[in-house]
Amino acid sequence: MEIDIERLTGRLQQLAQCGALDGGGVSRIALSEADKQGRDLVVSWMRELGLEVSIDQLGNVIATRAGTVHAQPILIGSHIDTVATGGNYDGNLGVLAGLEVIACLNDAGIETERAIAVGFFTNEEGVRYTPDMMGSMTHQGHLDIQQMLDTIGFDGSHLGQQLEQIGYAGQLECGSQRVHSFLELHIEQGPVLEQQGITIGVVEGVQGISWSQIDISGVSNHAGTTPMHLRRDAGYVAMAIATFVRELALKMGGDQVATVGSIELKPNLINVIANSASISVDLRNTDQQLLHCAEQQLAAYIKKIAASEKVQINCKELVRFAPVDFDPQLLNLVEQTALAQGHSVLRMPSGAGHDAQSFAPNCPTAMIFVPSVAGISHNITEHTETADIEAGANVLLRVVLQLASG
Amino acid sequence: MEIDIERLTGRLQQLAQCGALDGGGVSRIALSEADKQGRDLVVSWMRELGLEVSIDQLGNVIATRAGTVHAQPILIGSHIDTVATGGNYDGNLGVLAGLEVIACLNDAGIETERAIAVGFFTNEEGVRYTPDMMGSMTHQGHLDIQQMLDTIGFDGSHLGQQLEQIGYAGQLECGSQRVHSFLELHIEQGPVLEQQGITIGVVEGVQGISWSQIDISGVSNHAGTTPMHLRRDAGYVAMAIATFVRELALKMGGDQVATVGSIELKPNLINVIANSASISVDLRNTDQQLLHCAEQQLAAYIKKIAASEKVQINCKELVRFAPVDFDPQLLNLVEQTALAQGHSVLRMPSGAGHDAQSFAPNCPTAMIFVPSVAGISHNITEHTETADIEAGANVLLRVVLQLASG
Repeated sequence: MEIDIERLTGRLQQLAQCGALDGGGVSRIALSEADKQGRDLVVSWMRELGLEVSIDQLGNVIATRAGTVHAQPILIGSHIDTVATGGNYDGNLGVLAGLEVIACLNDAGIETERAIAVGFFTNEEGVRYTPDMMGSMTHQGHLDIQQMLDTIGFDGSHLGQQLEQIGYAGQLECGSQRVHSFLELHIEQGPVLEQQGITIGVVEGVQGISWSQIDISGVSNHAGTTPMHLRRDAGYVAMAIATFVRELALKMGGDQVATVGSIELKPNLINVIANSASISVDLRNTDQQLLHCAEQQLAAYIKKIAASEKVQINCKELVRFAPVDFDPQLLNLVEQTALAQGHSVLRMPSGAGHDAQSFAPNCPTAMIFVPSVAGISHNITEHTETADIEAGANVLLRVVLQLASG
Repeated sequence: MEIDIERLTGRLQQLAQCGALDGGGVSRIALSEADKQGRDLVVSWMRELGLEVSIDQLGNVIATRAGTVHAQPILIGSHIDTVATGGNYDGNLGVLAGLEVIACLNDAGIETERAIAVGFFTNEEGVRYTPDMMGSMTHQGHLDIQQMLDTIGFDGSHLGQQLEQIGYAGQLECGSQRVHSFLELHIEQGPVLEQQGITIGVVEGVQGISWSQIDISGVSNHAGTTPMHLRRDAGYVAMAIATFVRELALKMGGDQVATVGSIELKPNLINVIANSASISVDLRNTDQQLLHCAEQQLAAYIKKIAASEKVQINCKELVRFAPVDFDPQLLNLVEQTALAQGHSVLRMPSGAGHDAQSFAPNCPTAMIFVPSVAGISHNITEHTETADIEAGANVLLRVVLQLASG
């Protein structure tokens, strides 16, 4: 039994029409009209496949194929919302590959012991409403449902009202539903698999994330008339911190990554020493201890440079997620299954957040990565080769079959 | 004979009313209505002092007090235009101290051998029309008059038409008028004199300026999923160049200064590696060889980092002024005069451009600096203590007297 790649890619293409952008890519921001269209389409497929569709208070949709024994289902899931200029695979692949697994079982007339469910979770991207991974995090009891429903978006919209408007304010309580296990097939969104020529990534966990904003106050002065030793140059300090952060990641090695992706100087003029500078620092590591160590080294450097350059530095933590580990046994099952199907396999961390991390504390959870061409995602040129989609979906199918009868 | 400090500060205050900003400071941008008011006021003072006022094609105003012999005049001058949120001293002090010198001579009934003239030059600041120092540069034959009259401003205005509108499109040919010598009293616009507790700066020359824009093209990628060694991070490269430039200035020492005052990253997001970055680099030195050496070291570093980080780097020269040396004999005269009056004196470079540099290639030229409180200028809080203004104006008076009878 194998998945039908044409049916799967056909569904991916059909879903990509909901919110399609001229010139390619898709804009299907959470709870928008395009999101409603996408949801309606996926739900219609769920019904065609004979699944029992449930919609919870936060608009999370879970469709279940009954098993022969009464037990918690195996859940395959991801999300179908996108960033403003997103691609066709991020999230969608995990949901539609789940439906393809169901379709295969239906076609083959196979009953499983355990029930198998396919779900998509509201607002994974966090573009319109904060935080991201909202649906799955609330579903797994990490966030408060009422607080989420009361969220006001960046566009001023009220999340609860918006859910009602698109018809996805369900009746089912959202907050602590448990499942037997959770599986998510996803594109890598990075360049590692492609660079190494590997088809299947066995995702061991999600990197911990530490985001901070660093605001520096110096003194504005004339770039010509102010000797170097009399400067209190906020811009220089910001850029020195950025280069320190880079060197820190290289020195630490391993999974440590560090990025300064945004900077703002004031007055930002060619011949004026900046009196104010802000940068963001994004630190990630799969190891909680090492991530903490990186944060401490950054803090020590900031203290040192504030004194030596006579500037004020203010640090604000924006986001702090501890690293998440997926289930070792389930990872072994994914790895053995992929190898048995003749695929090259790499154990790797995920550098991005995913719905799977909401489930990891509560049930055996695993993720399967397939390569992203040029490592590009969150972009209209996001692409994954059909052969890789097929490989990933077949690994998912085989893993589900083993779990459902095990 | 001494200058009348109350008359001088009174005129400074009156001129500051033309274009006065609520809350202090002044906005008297070149050829604006406020500039017309300021010009009219200064010209009325020139006429009251019995001077012969000339206005050239570019609106430069020179008012002459005849001497007893027929010879080129000693010219005292500066500018009265300001930046958008400027102070009361930058430029104005040099012009009004010149009028105060004339008033002293008139009061004392002193005739001089050489004629003495006081002038103000159009568009020194270069805020509305490029280039800065336009009036003096054209007056001394370094720029083409027709090209300047045809200049279109950042606000879309035509310089020649604007001159006519404010009534300062004169008849006198502008382009190569020669004078015996040129003197400019100016606020330092930097912190050096105040920091060292010195009253009179003897300005040996103007730093050469090298401005460039550096555009870096990398590849945008996810800050979490892209390992450090696979990045082509335009933002990092921009900030590494900025820190290199700073270290270069410290290593070179002497008068070398270096500033990266502006930066722009794209997309400038916390969790996205920048694919594009632009920075400005401002390098200055009083020594042409050393400035060239700084430029070469920057170019070598850029070449190296472009290769190691696999980014494209494009450098564009925006401005390149060679250093200007003022006249050694005239500098000695200023220094000896200041010392004779009991003032502390420092020989120093100017880090900013001034009208005096237009004259330096054509005639003996010198500048006198007085301290700027906290080194601040081009700002509504720009301030110079009255005692320092008085000291500077008295040095100017004594130097002029010696030149005019020498």
